[in-house]
Amino acid sequence: MTYCVAMKLDAGMVFASDTRTNAGVDNISRVDKMHVFAKQSDRVIVALSAGNLSITQNAINQIERTAKETPDVANIYSVTSMYDAAELVGNTLRDVRQREGEYLRQQNIDSSASFIVGGQIAGEAPRLFLIYSEGNFIESSSEAPFFQNGEIKYGKPVIDRVISPSLSLAEAIKLTLVSFDSTMRSNISVGLPIDLLVYPVDSLDAGQQHRIEETDSYFRELGTLWNEGLKRAFTSIPVPDEFARKS
Amino acid sequence: MTYCVAMKLDAGMVFASDTRTNAGVDNISRVDKMHVFAKQSDRVIVALSAGNLSITQNAINQIERTAKETPDVANIYSVTSMYDAAELVGNTLRDVRQREGEYLRQQNIDSSASFIVGGQIAGEAPRLFLIYSEGNFIESSSEAPFFQNGEIKYGKPVIDRVISPSLSLAEAIKLTLVSFDSTMRSNISVGLPIDLLVYPVDSLDAGQQHRIEETDSYFRELGTLWNEGLKRAFTSIPVPDEFARKS
Repeated sequence: MTYCVAMKLDAGMVFASDTRTNAGVDNISRVDKMHVFAKQSDRVIVALSAGNLSITQNAINQIERTAKETPDVANIYSVTSMYDAAELVGNTLRDVRQREGEYLRQQNIDSSASFIVGGQIAGEAPRLFLIYSEGNFIESSSEAPFFQNGEIKYGKPVIDRVISPSLSLAEAIKLTLVSFDSTMRSNISVGLPIDLLVYPVDSLDAGQQHRIEETDSYFRELGTLWNEGLKRAFTSIPVPDEFARKS
Repeated sequence: MTYCVAMKLDAGMVFASDTRTNAGVDNISRVDKMHVFAKQSDRVIVALSAGNLSITQNAINQIERTAKETPDVANIYSVTSMYDAAELVGNTLRDVRQREGEYLRQQNIDSSASFIVGGQIAGEAPRLFLIYSEGNFIESSSEAPFFQNGEIKYGKPVIDRVISPSLSLAEAIKLTLVSFDSTMRSNISVGLPIDLLVYPVDSLDAGQQHRIEETDSYFRELGTLWNEGLKRAFTSIPVPDEFARKS
């Protein structure tokens, strides 16, 4: 299973993905679900993948190979808008699924796969897209300036309550990690380490990448404080005398 | 969509279900998803249903009709163990899906349906079961003394953190309603009113049934306090200086 989340704030963007993959409980390993296409001072494009790993890796490799082998054709390093970047990822996903999907279907293997694609290309503001398994895509809105991918539900309520474009990047990182903590508590197949990329608006620099391991003291403290805070929030609500006559 | 939850505590049981049904966004109405089979001083059996409404209503009607038409055959009012009650519901669900499923499948309509069945029969301790769409079932454990049905994920993290067999019934009601508040915030197709049944252990009395409407002052206060408490819990976590150099 996978959990990815990306937020677009006035101050920039935060991307995060877990790194757990499993094909059955006895075949667990770590993979990169965060792929960065960057050209210093020109573009930072981040793709977070979920779903069938052979499909998403195939798509990412095809995107990189096309850029290398036919640099004159529009590619991820030459498109001039994030919209075009999202379309390129969507079309590549369609190609790969068309080629591979039928073989997988014959064995009842799901070829579904999806991407969050976000970032900034010089001349444009940062933008964030969600690319569905069918290759179509949507852009984030200022009312809901985030997308999730994979095991999204456990970690969504806290984002719904806190997210706002005015959050600082540090607050958005905190929110992202709280959302991961909630997800990992309820679904053991989402696991550490977490890949984190922080993108300050207009920096056109992908330098702020972090891998949060089990030994990370901030993430552990965050988990403890969040758990205590939730329990305190629960305790702060009075019990309902009206509903329980004999309790 | 549906959300149901049932908890088994040392002090008794709490059952809750929403009442929203929809077949498309323009066909929304209220239905009972909580069905009570009770004989004063002898048994209280509660079934919470989720999934295809025609299937679950059909099953409940068949259970009631069998009890009425052939009272000498083992039925929901005569079985001597909650295990037998769960098996009866599971077998009935199998019958109904066998009869109806193929017709629905021809129109790509999902005939999936499931039940939480819990309660107490005189001579036994309270017991709680989850009956899957295929008619097989499992019983709750003391480590996880609750079951959810329907749209389960949004409201699960808070239960995971707080649940314990030693909760009082009033605390369990509070926990149930916080879980509903979280679910309804993230999925608008789960809606008020909530049907709530509180069962004190060994009472063999189904008298404590409540319908929580939008005007319910406790539920509204609970939603406000929980939201404030969550935000306070979030604020109480320091921001991560180490991950955000320029934010």
